[in-house]
Amino acid sequence: MPDDATTLHELRRRMAEFVAERDWGRFHSPKNLVMGLAVEAAELMEHFLWMENAESFAVAQDAQRLTAIGEEMADVACYLLALANVLGMDLSDAIVDKLAKNATKYPVERYRGRYQ
Amino acid sequence: MPDDATTLHELRRRMAEFVAERDWGRFHSPKNLVMGLAVEAAELMEHFLWMENAESFAVAQDAQRLTAIGEEMADVACYLLALANVLGMDLSDAIVDKLAKNATKYPVERYRGRYQ
Amino acid sequence: MPDDATTLHELRRRMAEFVAERDWGRFHSPKNLVMGLAVEAAELMEHFLWMENAESFAVAQDAQRLTAIGEEMADVACYLLALANVLGMDLSDAIVDKLAKNATKYPVERYRGRYQ
Amino acid sequence: MPDDATTLHELRRRMAEFVAERDWGRFHSPKNLVMGLAVEAAELMEHFLWMENAESFAVAQDAQRLTAIGEEMADVACYLLALANVLGMDLSDAIVDKLAKNATKYPVERYRGRYQ
Repeated sequence: MPDDATTLHELRRRMAEFVAERDWGRFHSPKNLVMGLAVEAAELMEHFLWMENAESFAVAQDAQRLTAIGEEMADVACYLLALANVLGMDLSDAIVDKLAKNATKYPVERYRGRYQ
Repeated sequence: MPDDATTLHELRRRMAEFVAERDWGRFHSPKNLVMGLAVEAAELMEHFLWMENAESFAVAQDAQRLTAIGEEMADVACYLLALANVLGMDLSDAIVDKLAKNATKYPVERYRGRYQ
Repeated sequence: MPDDATTLHELRRRMAEFVAERDWGRFHSPKNLVMGLAVEAAELMEHFLWMENAESFAVAQDAQRLTAIGEEMADVACYLLALANVLGMDLSDAIVDKLAKNATKYPVERYRGRYQ
Repeated sequence: MPDDATTLHELRRRMAEFVAERDWGRFHSPKNLVMGLAVEAAELMEHFLWMENAESFAVAQDAQRLTAIGEEMADVACYLLALANVLGMDLSDAIVDKLAKNATKYPVERYRGRYQ
Protein backbone atom coordinates (compact mmCIF):
# COMPACT_ATOMS: atom_id res chain seq x y z
CA MET A 1 0.00 0.00 0.00
CA PRO A 2 1.34 3.46 -0.82
CA ASP A 3 2.08 5.89 1.96
CA ASP A 4 -0.95 8.23 2.08
CA ALA A 5 0.39 9.69 5.30
CA THR A 6 -1.38 13.04 4.91
CA THR A 7 -4.24 13.79 7.26
CA LEU A 8 -7.65 14.79 5.95
CA HIS A 9 -7.20 17.93 8.03
CA GLU A 10 -4.20 18.95 5.94
CA LEU A 11 -5.93 18.09 2.64
CA ARG A 12 -8.97 20.14 3.67
CA ARG A 13 -6.72 23.05 4.60
CA ARG A 14 -5.13 22.99 1.14
CA MET A 15 -8.51 22.80 -0.56
CA ALA A 16 -9.83 25.71 1.54
CA GLU A 17 -6.77 27.78 0.61
CA PHE A 18 -7.27 27.05 -3.10
CA VAL A 19 -10.89 28.20 -2.91
CA ALA A 20 -10.15 31.28 -0.79
CA GLU A 21 -7.36 32.50 -3.10
CA ARG A 22 -9.85 32.53 -6.00
CA ASP A 23 -12.76 33.86 -3.95
CA TRP A 24 -14.80 30.90 -5.15
CA GLY A 25 -16.70 30.47 -1.88
CA ARG A 26 -19.68 32.25 -3.43
CA PHE A 27 -20.04 29.47 -6.04
CA HIS A 28 -19.39 26.67 -3.56
CA SER A 29 -22.91 26.17 -2.30
CA PRO A 30 -23.50 22.63 -1.04
CA LYS A 31 -25.95 22.17 -3.94
CA ASN A 32 -23.32 23.08 -6.54
CA LEU A 33 -20.62 21.02 -4.84
CA VAL A 34 -22.68 17.82 -4.77
CA MET A 35 -23.53 18.34 -8.45
CA GLY A 36 -19.85 18.78 -9.23
CA LEU A 37 -19.02 15.67 -7.24
CA ALA A 38 -21.60 13.63 -9.17
CA VAL A 39 -20.22 14.92 -12.48
CA GLU A 40 -16.69 13.85 -11.51
CA ALA A 41 -17.95 10.47 -10.28
CA ALA A 42 -19.42 9.94 -13.75
CA GLU A 43 -16.16 10.94 -15.44
CA LEU A 44 -14.38 8.40 -13.26
CA MET A 45 -16.99 5.78 -14.18
CA GLU A 46 -16.59 6.46 -17.89
CA HIS A 47 -13.11 4.91 -17.81
CA PHE A 48 -14.69 1.55 -17.00
CA LEU A 49 -17.81 1.80 -19.16
CA TRP A 50 -17.48 -1.08 -21.63
CA MET A 51 -15.28 -3.39 -19.55
CA GLU A 52 -15.98 -6.69 -17.91
CA ASN A 53 -15.42 -6.65 -14.14
CA ALA A 54 -12.39 -8.92 -14.54
CA GLU A 55 -10.84 -6.59 -17.14
CA SER A 56 -11.29 -3.57 -14.93
CA PHE A 57 -8.69 -4.85 -12.43
CA ALA A 58 -6.08 -4.59 -15.19
CA VAL A 59 -6.11 -0.80 -15.28
CA ALA A 60 -3.81 -0.98 -12.24
CA GLN A 61 -1.09 -2.22 -14.65
CA ASP A 62 -1.61 0.55 -17.22
CA ALA A 63 0.42 3.52 -15.94
CA GLN A 64 -1.02 6.09 -18.33
CA ARG A 65 -4.62 5.12 -17.70
CA LEU A 66 -3.96 4.92 -13.97
CA THR A 67 -2.75 8.52 -13.96
CA ALA A 68 -5.92 9.64 -15.72
CA ILE A 69 -8.05 7.67 -13.28
CA GLY A 70 -6.12 9.13 -10.34
CA GLU A 71 -7.00 12.60 -11.58
CA GLU A 72 -10.70 11.78 -11.65
CA MET A 73 -10.45 10.24 -8.18
CA ALA A 74 -8.73 13.42 -7.00
CA ASP A 75 -11.53 15.53 -8.52
CA VAL A 76 -14.13 13.53 -6.60
CA ALA A 77 -12.05 13.86 -3.42
CA CYS A 78 -11.60 17.62 -3.89
CA TYR A 79 -15.35 18.19 -4.12
CA LEU A 80 -15.81 16.05 -1.02
CA LEU A 81 -13.18 18.08 0.86
CA ALA A 82 -14.75 21.35 -0.29
CA LEU A 83 -18.18 20.16 0.85
CA ALA A 84 -16.76 19.10 4.22
CA ASN A 85 -15.27 22.59 4.54
CA VAL A 86 -18.54 24.34 3.71
CA LEU A 87 -20.61 22.15 6.03
CA GLY A 88 -18.04 21.98 8.84
CA MET A 89 -18.20 18.19 8.62
CA ASP A 90 -15.52 16.03 10.26
CA LEU A 91 -15.12 13.60 7.38
CA SER A 92 -12.80 11.18 9.24
CA ASP A 93 -15.37 10.82 11.99
CA ALA A 94 -18.14 10.34 9.42
CA ILE A 95 -16.13 7.58 7.72
CA VAL A 96 -15.22 5.82 10.96
CA ASP A 97 -18.85 6.03 12.16
CA LYS A 98 -20.17 4.67 8.87
CA LEU A 99 -17.75 1.75 8.90
CA ALA A 100 -18.94 0.92 12.43
CA LYS A 101 -22.58 1.16 11.33
CA ASN A 102 -21.90 -1.04 8.30
CA ALA A 103 -20.08 -3.57 10.48
CA THR A 104 -23.34 -3.98 12.44
CA LYS A 105 -25.49 -4.02 9.31
CA TYR A 106 -23.33 -6.61 7.58
CA PRO A 107 -22.15 -9.01 10.32
CA VAL A 108 -19.11 -11.02 9.20
CA GLU A 109 -20.65 -14.42 9.96
CA ARG A 110 -23.66 -13.77 7.70
CA TYR A 111 -22.12 -11.76 4.88
CA ARG A 112 -18.79 -13.48 4.41
CA GLY A 113 -18.44 -14.00 0.67
CA ARG A 114 -21.85 -12.67 -0.26
CA TYR A 115 -23.61 -9.35 -0.45
CA GLN A 116 -27.21 -10.35 0.09
CA MET B 1 -12.77 23.46 11.22
CA PRO B 2 -13.19 20.10 12.98
CA ASP B 3 -10.19 18.00 13.76
CA ASP B 4 -9.99 15.40 10.93
CA ALA B 5 -6.59 14.37 12.20
CA THR B 6 -6.76 10.86 10.77
CA THR B 7 -4.49 10.03 7.85
CA LEU B 8 -5.85 8.62 4.62
CA HIS B 9 -3.48 5.73 5.22
CA GLU B 10 -5.31 4.81 8.42
CA LEU B 11 -8.75 5.20 6.80
CA ARG B 12 -7.68 2.99 3.91
CA ARG B 13 -6.38 0.39 6.36
CA ARG B 14 -9.74 0.28 8.11
CA MET B 15 -11.63 0.02 4.84
CA ALA B 16 -9.33 -2.80 3.65
CA GLU B 17 -9.93 -4.65 6.92
CA PHE B 18 -13.70 -4.29 6.58
CA VAL B 19 -13.58 -5.75 3.06
CA ALA B 20 -11.15 -8.56 3.96
CA GLU B 21 -13.21 -9.71 6.97
CA ARG B 22 -16.22 -10.22 4.66
CA ASP B 23 -14.20 -11.64 1.76
CA TRP B 24 -15.75 -8.99 -0.47
CA GLY B 25 -12.63 -8.44 -2.57
CA ARG B 26 -14.14 -10.62 -5.31
CA PHE B 27 -16.99 -8.12 -5.77
CA HIS B 28 -14.77 -5.07 -5.50
CA SER B 29 -13.72 -4.79 -9.11
CA PRO B 30 -12.83 -1.21 -10.09
CA LYS B 31 -15.87 -1.23 -12.38
CA ASN B 32 -18.25 -2.13 -9.57
CA LEU B 33 -16.62 0.31 -7.14
CA VAL B 34 -16.94 3.30 -9.47
CA MET B 35 -20.59 2.39 -10.08
CA GLY B 36 -21.15 2.21 -6.32
CA LEU B 37 -19.40 5.55 -5.89
CA ALA B 38 -21.64 7.17 -8.52
CA VAL B 39 -24.76 5.72 -6.85
CA GLU B 40 -23.72 7.18 -3.50
CA ALA B 41 -22.87 10.54 -5.10
CA ALA B 42 -26.44 10.63 -6.43
CA GLU B 43 -27.88 9.79 -3.00
CA LEU B 44 -25.85 12.67 -1.57
CA MET B 45 -27.13 14.93 -4.35
CA GLU B 46 -30.74 13.97 -3.69
CA HIS B 47 -30.64 15.85 -0.35
CA PHE B 48 -30.21 19.10 -2.27
CA LEU B 49 -32.48 18.39 -5.23
CA TRP B 50 -35.20 21.05 -5.02
CA MET B 51 -33.23 23.73 -3.15
CA GLU B 52 -31.95 27.09 -4.21
CA ASN B 53 -28.17 27.43 -3.86
CA ALA B 54 -28.63 29.91 -1.02
CA GLU B 55 -30.92 27.52 0.88
CA SER B 56 -28.46 24.68 0.56
CA PHE B 57 -25.97 26.40 2.89
CA ALA B 58 -28.56 26.16 5.66
CA VAL B 59 -28.31 22.38 5.97
CA ALA B 60 -25.18 23.03 8.08
CA GLN B 61 -27.57 24.29 10.81
CA ASP B 62 -29.89 21.27 10.67
CA ALA B 63 -28.25 18.63 12.89
CA GLN B 64 -30.46 15.73 11.81
CA ARG B 65 -30.09 16.43 8.10
CA LEU B 66 -26.36 17.01 8.54
CA THR B 67 -25.97 13.55 10.06
CA ALA B 68 -27.79 12.00 7.09
CA ILE B 69 -25.62 13.98 4.67
CA GLY B 70 -22.49 12.95 6.56
CA GLU B 71 -23.44 9.32 6.06
CA GLU B 72 -23.75 9.79 2.30
CA MET B 73 -20.43 11.64 2.22
CA ALA B 74 -18.88 8.74 4.13
CA ASP B 75 -20.34 6.26 1.63
CA VAL B 76 -18.74 8.18 -1.24
CA ALA B 77 -15.45 8.31 0.68
CA CYS B 78 -15.54 4.58 1.48
CA TYR B 79 -15.88 3.66 -2.19
CA LEU B 80 -13.04 6.02 -3.00
CA LEU B 81 -10.84 4.41 -0.31
CA ALA B 82 -11.77 0.91 -1.53
CA LEU B 83 -10.91 1.88 -5.10
CA ALA B 84 -7.59 3.37 -3.97
CA ASN B 85 -6.88 0.06 -2.20
CA VAL B 86 -7.70 -2.05 -5.26
CA LEU B 87 -5.69 0.15 -7.65
CA GLY B 88 -2.79 0.79 -5.25
CA MET B 89 -3.37 4.51 -5.73
CA ASP B 90 -1.83 7.06 -3.35
CA LEU B 91 -4.90 9.23 -2.99
CA SER B 92 -3.16 12.01 -1.00
CA ASP B 93 -0.58 12.37 -3.74
CA ALA B 94 -3.31 12.37 -6.42
CA ILE B 95 -5.16 15.15 -4.56
CA VAL B 96 -2.04 17.26 -3.98
CA ASP B 97 -1.01 16.82 -7.63
CA LYS B 98 -4.48 17.75 -8.89
CA LEU B 99 -4.59 20.89 -6.74
CA ALA B 100 -1.22 21.91 -8.19
CA LYS B 101 -2.47 21.23 -11.73
CA ASN B 102 -5.66 23.22 -11.08
CA ALA B 103 -3.63 26.08 -9.62
CA THR B 104 -1.88 26.35 -12.99
CA LYS B 105 -5.10 25.92 -14.95
CA TYR B 106 -6.95 28.55 -12.93
CA PRO B 107 -4.40 31.28 -12.13
CA VAL B 108 -5.52 33.47 -9.22
CA GLU B 109 -5.17 36.75 -11.10
CA ARG B 110 -7.50 35.63 -13.89
CA TYR B 111 -10.04 33.53 -12.03
CA ARG B 112 -10.51 35.50 -8.83
CA GLY B 113 -14.26 35.74 -8.32
CA ARG B 114 -15.23 34.00 -11.54
CA TYR B 115 -15.19 30.53 -13.00
CA GLN B 116 -14.95 31.26 -16.68
CA MET C 1 -40.66 -5.77 -29.53
CA PRO C 2 -43.60 -4.39 -27.53
CA ASP C 3 -45.88 -1.89 -29.13
CA ASP C 4 -44.71 1.53 -27.85
CA ALA C 5 -47.04 3.20 -30.33
CA THR C 6 -47.38 6.41 -28.31
CA THR C 7 -45.75 9.54 -29.71
CA LEU C 8 -43.32 11.58 -27.67
CA HIS C 9 -45.70 14.47 -28.28
CA GLU C 10 -48.47 12.68 -26.38
CA LEU C 11 -46.13 11.64 -23.54
CA ARG C 12 -44.90 15.22 -23.21
CA ARG C 13 -48.48 16.47 -23.11
CA ARG C 14 -49.29 14.10 -20.25
CA MET C 15 -46.17 15.10 -18.35
CA ALA C 16 -46.97 18.81 -18.84
CA GLU C 17 -50.50 18.23 -17.55
CA PHE C 18 -49.19 16.41 -14.46
CA VAL C 19 -46.86 19.31 -13.64
CA ALA C 20 -49.45 22.02 -14.36
CA GLU C 21 -52.12 20.41 -12.15
CA ARG C 22 -49.71 20.57 -9.20
CA ASP C 23 -48.29 24.00 -10.07
CA TRP C 24 -44.83 22.48 -9.97
CA GLY C 25 -43.47 24.58 -12.83
CA ARG C 26 -41.77 26.87 -10.31
CA PHE C 27 -39.60 23.97 -9.09
CA HIS C 28 -38.92 22.63 -12.56
CA SER C 29 -35.91 24.72 -13.44
CA PRO C 30 -33.64 23.01 -15.97
CA LYS C 31 -30.99 22.81 -13.23
CA ASN C 32 -33.31 20.94 -10.87
CA LEU C 33 -34.63 18.68 -13.62
CA VAL C 34 -31.17 17.52 -14.74
CA MET C 35 -30.26 16.83 -11.10
CA GLY C 36 -33.44 14.79 -10.73
CA LEU C 37 -32.67 12.93 -13.93
CA ALA C 38 -29.17 12.07 -12.70
CA VAL C 39 -30.57 10.85 -9.37
CA GLU C 40 -33.02 8.55 -11.17
CA ALA C 41 -30.29 7.31 -13.52
CA ALA C 42 -28.31 6.28 -10.43
CA GLU C 43 -31.32 4.49 -8.93
CA LEU C 44 -31.68 2.59 -12.20
CA MET C 45 -27.97 1.76 -12.13
CA GLU C 46 -28.18 0.48 -8.56
CA HIS C 47 -30.21 -2.52 -9.75
CA PHE C 48 -27.17 -3.74 -11.68
CA LEU C 49 -24.44 -2.74 -9.23
CA TRP C 50 -22.80 -6.03 -8.25
CA MET C 51 -23.61 -8.04 -11.37
CA GLU C 52 -21.45 -9.38 -14.14
CA ASN C 53 -22.44 -8.07 -17.58
CA ALA C 54 -23.64 -11.55 -18.57
CA GLU C 55 -25.84 -11.80 -15.47
CA SER C 56 -27.43 -8.44 -16.13
CA PHE C 57 -29.19 -9.75 -19.27
CA ALA C 58 -31.13 -12.17 -17.05
CA VAL C 59 -33.18 -9.45 -15.35
CA ALA C 60 -35.39 -9.56 -18.48
CA GLN C 61 -36.62 -12.96 -17.20
CA ASP C 62 -37.39 -11.74 -13.65
CA ALA C 63 -40.86 -10.19 -13.84
CA GLN C 64 -40.76 -8.54 -10.42
CA ARG C 65 -37.34 -7.00 -10.91
CA LEU C 66 -38.28 -5.94 -14.42
CA THR C 67 -41.26 -4.00 -13.09
CA ALA C 68 -39.03 -2.19 -10.60
CA ILE C 69 -36.50 -1.42 -13.35
CA GLY C 70 -39.30 -0.19 -15.62
CA GLU C 71 -40.32 2.28 -12.93
CA GLU C 72 -36.81 3.69 -12.73
CA MET C 73 -36.63 3.92 -16.52
CA ALA C 74 -39.95 5.77 -16.47
CA ASP C 75 -38.61 8.17 -13.84
CA VAL C 76 -35.62 8.97 -16.06
CA ALA C 77 -37.94 9.40 -19.05
CA CYS C 78 -40.32 11.67 -17.12
CA TYR C 79 -37.52 14.05 -16.17
CA LEU C 80 -36.37 14.05 -19.78
CA LEU C 81 -39.91 14.87 -20.99
CA ALA C 82 -40.27 17.60 -18.35
CA LEU C 83 -36.93 19.09 -19.42
CA ALA C 84 -37.97 18.98 -23.09
CA ASN C 85 -41.16 20.81 -22.10
CA VAL C 86 -39.31 23.52 -20.19
CA LEU C 87 -36.71 24.05 -22.90
CA GLY C 88 -39.13 23.70 -25.84
CA MET C 89 -36.88 20.96 -27.22
CA ASP C 90 -38.09 18.61 -29.94
CA LEU C 91 -36.71 15.43 -28.44
CA SER C 92 -37.54 13.19 -31.43
CA ASP C 93 -35.58 15.50 -33.70
CA ALA C 94 -32.68 15.60 -31.23
CA ILE C 95 -32.60 11.79 -31.13
CA VAL C 96 -32.81 11.38 -34.91
CA ASP C 97 -30.10 14.02 -35.40
CA LYS C 98 -27.82 12.39 -32.83
CA LEU C 99 -28.22 8.97 -34.43
CA ALA C 100 -27.24 10.49 -37.79
CA LYS C 101 -24.21 12.21 -36.19
CA ASN C 102 -23.17 8.97 -34.48
CA ALA C 103 -23.58 7.07 -37.76
CA THR C 104 -20.93 9.39 -39.24
CA LYS C 105 -18.71 9.22 -36.15
CA TYR C 106 -18.84 5.43 -36.01
CA PRO C 107 -18.86 4.20 -39.62
CA VAL C 108 -20.10 0.62 -39.88
CA GLU C 109 -17.06 -0.66 -41.77
CA ARG C 110 -14.65 0.50 -39.08
CA TYR C 111 -16.64 -0.08 -35.91
CA ARG C 112 -18.39 -3.35 -36.66
CA GLY C 113 -17.90 -5.49 -33.56
CA ARG C 114 -15.69 -3.04 -31.71
CA TYR C 115 -16.03 0.25 -29.89
CA GLN C 116 -12.57 1.70 -30.30
CA MET D 1 -44.55 22.91 -28.14
CA PRO D 2 -42.56 21.41 -31.03
CA ASP D 3 -44.03 18.56 -33.00
CA ASP D 4 -42.41 15.40 -31.57
CA ALA D 5 -44.82 13.32 -33.59
CA THR D 6 -42.54 10.28 -33.75
CA THR D 7 -43.57 7.21 -31.79
CA LEU D 8 -41.25 5.58 -29.29
CA HIS D 9 -41.69 2.44 -31.38
CA GLU D 10 -40.09 4.14 -34.37
CA LEU D 11 -37.27 5.63 -32.29
CA ARG D 12 -36.54 2.24 -30.78
CA ARG D 13 -36.50 0.67 -34.23
CA ARG D 14 -33.89 3.19 -35.41
CA MET D 15 -31.76 2.64 -32.32
CA ALA D 16 -31.96 -1.15 -32.76
CA GLU D 17 -30.89 -0.79 -36.38
CA PHE D 18 -27.92 1.40 -35.42
CA VAL D 19 -26.75 -1.19 -32.90
CA ALA D 20 -27.34 -4.18 -35.19
CA GLU D 21 -25.41 -2.62 -38.11
CA ARG D 22 -22.35 -2.31 -35.86
CA ASP D 23 -22.84 -5.66 -34.11
CA TRP D 24 -22.72 -3.82 -30.78
CA GLY D 25 -25.31 -6.03 -29.10
CA ARG D 26 -22.52 -7.92 -27.36
CA PHE D 27 -21.46 -4.73 -25.53
CA HIS D 28 -25.00 -3.64 -24.77
CA SER D 29 -25.53 -5.53 -21.56
CA PRO D 30 -28.11 -3.85 -19.31
CA LYS D 31 -25.28 -3.17 -16.84
CA ASN D 32 -23.21 -1.32 -19.44
CA LEU D 33 -26.22 0.57 -20.78
CA VAL D 34 -27.28 1.93 -17.38
CA MET D 35 -23.69 3.03 -16.75
CA GLY D 36 -23.64 4.79 -20.11
CA LEU D 37 -26.97 6.42 -19.34
CA ALA D 38 -25.66 7.70 -15.99
CA VAL D 39 -22.53 9.08 -17.68
CA GLU D 40 -24.64 10.97 -20.22
CA ALA D 41 -26.97 12.24 -17.48
CA ALA D 42 -23.90 13.72 -15.77
CA GLU D 43 -22.71 15.35 -19.01
CA LEU D 44 -26.15 16.90 -19.36
CA MET D 45 -25.98 18.08 -15.74
CA GLU D 46 -22.56 19.64 -16.25
CA HIS D 47 -24.12 22.34 -18.47
CA PHE D 48 -26.01 23.65 -15.44
CA LEU D 49 -23.34 23.15 -12.79
CA TRP D 50 -22.61 26.64 -11.49
CA MET D 51 -25.94 28.29 -12.30
CA GLU D 52 -28.72 29.56 -10.11
CA ASN D 53 -32.06 27.87 -10.78
CA ALA D 54 -33.44 31.11 -12.24
CA GLU D 55 -30.47 31.44 -14.62
CA SER D 56 -30.89 27.90 -15.87
CA PHE D 57 -34.22 28.76 -17.56
CA ALA D 58 -32.32 31.18 -19.82
CA VAL D 59 -30.48 28.43 -21.71
CA ALA D 60 -33.70 28.07 -23.75
CA GLN D 61 -32.80 31.44 -25.35
CA ASP D 62 -29.19 30.47 -26.17
CA ALA D 63 -29.40 28.59 -29.50
CA GLN D 64 -25.83 27.29 -29.45
CA ARG D 65 -26.02 26.02 -25.89
CA LEU D 66 -29.47 24.57 -26.53
CA THR D 67 -28.09 22.49 -29.40
CA ALA D 68 -25.35 21.13 -27.16
CA ILE D 69 -27.89 20.34 -24.43
CA GLY D 70 -30.17 18.68 -26.97
CA GLU D 71 -27.31 16.37 -27.92
CA GLU D 72 -26.80 15.31 -24.32
CA MET D 73 -30.56 14.78 -23.92
CA ALA D 74 -30.49 12.63 -27.06
CA ASP D 75 -27.60 10.60 -25.65
CA VAL D 76 -29.58 9.89 -22.50
CA ALA D 77 -32.63 8.99 -24.60
CA CYS D 78 -30.61 6.68 -26.88
CA TYR D 79 -29.31 4.66 -23.92
CA LEU D 80 -32.86 4.46 -22.59
CA LEU D 81 -34.13 3.22 -25.96
CA ALA D 82 -31.29 0.70 -26.22
CA LEU D 83 -32.06 -0.57 -22.72
CA ALA D 84 -35.77 -0.86 -23.55
CA ASN D 85 -34.76 -2.89 -26.63
CA VAL D 86 -32.52 -5.25 -24.65
CA LEU D 87 -35.05 -5.76 -21.87
CA GLY D 88 -38.12 -5.89 -24.15
CA MET D 89 -39.64 -3.10 -22.08
CA ASP D 90 -42.62 -1.11 -23.36
CA LEU D 91 -41.35 2.30 -22.34
CA SER D 92 -44.58 4.18 -23.22
CA ASP D 93 -46.53 1.88 -20.93
CA ALA D 94 -43.94 2.25 -18.19
CA ILE D 95 -44.18 6.05 -18.43
CA VAL D 96 -47.99 6.11 -18.48
CA ASP D 97 -48.11 3.69 -15.52
CA LYS D 98 -45.60 5.74 -13.54
CA LEU D 99 -47.52 8.96 -14.14
CA ALA D 100 -50.68 7.24 -12.87
CA LYS D 101 -48.81 5.96 -9.79
CA ASN D 102 -47.35 9.41 -9.12
CA ALA D 103 -50.81 10.98 -9.51
CA THR D 104 -51.95 8.79 -6.60
CA LYS D 105 -48.79 9.43 -4.57
CA TYR D 106 -48.99 13.20 -5.04
CA PRO D 107 -52.72 14.11 -4.96
CA VAL D 108 -53.35 17.50 -6.50
CA GLU D 109 -55.22 18.91 -3.50
CA ARG D 110 -52.32 18.21 -1.13
CA TYR D 111 -49.31 18.88 -3.35
CA ARG D 112 -50.42 21.90 -5.33
CA GLY D 113 -47.51 24.33 -5.18
CA ARG D 114 -45.35 22.27 -2.87
CA TYR D 115 -43.28 19.13 -3.02
CA GLN D 116 -43.39 17.94 0.57
